[in-house]
Amino acid sequence: MVGENPTDKRFSDTLARAGQDAEAAATRPDHPLHAALGRLLDRAQRSGQVRPDVDTAVVIAVMVGTAYALRQVGHHVGGRTSALAVVVDGLRRSASARGRRRREWR
Amino acid sequence: MVGENPTDKRFSDTLARAGQDAEAAATRPDHPLHAALGRLLDRAQRSGQVRPDVDTAVVIAVMVGTAYALRQVGHHVGGRTSALAVVVDGLRRSASARGRRRREWR
Repeated sequence: MVGENPTDKRFSDTLARAGQDAEAAATRPDHPLHAALGRLLDRAQRSGQVRPDVDTAVVIAVMVGTAYALRQVGHHVGGRTSALAVVVDGLRRSASARGRRRREWR
Repeated sequence: MVGENPTDKRFSDTLARAGQDAEAAATRPDHPLHAALGRLLDRAQRSGQVRPDVDTAVVIAVMVGTAYALRQVGHHVGGRTSALAVVVDGLRRSASARGRRRREWR
């Protein structure tokens, strides 16, 4: 995802189509992608890997936004890695717990 | 940003324009937004609030992606709050340190 070949447009095109599919999935809970991602998310949340305050629609929206952000970064591999790390780290349960504590301190 | 009035399109329109401006800023370091955000980011990184592995272009791309994600979520306030929390928590220095440790463990 991060180190794609700059001359290969197939990945970008797939992401663009996935964005359209994901948009449909986020607004239509009967979409197969919604159900499949829901099962993965449920497992990840039960095992304590992913923060509990996100649902399938939010994760799909964040994934679509991330794909959009990676397009903004372009083909700079370091930038793509950092942008992806922000979202992946933000989805962790630990990020949620730390963020909540900080918000409560205010 | 999170609780905008569903009947008020002005905020969304402003975000959409900001996205275009941000796209220009991310690719043009001479853009005023780039310099202003760079100073804010530098201060936040020096004070240990924001992860050190992001630069101005990455932060702008992530902001643009987040605005795009919030559009996907629509006007569901809980969903908008969660989507925004993922990105804000992911930008924290603590999220970076924890994510790095987990990646090293693999």
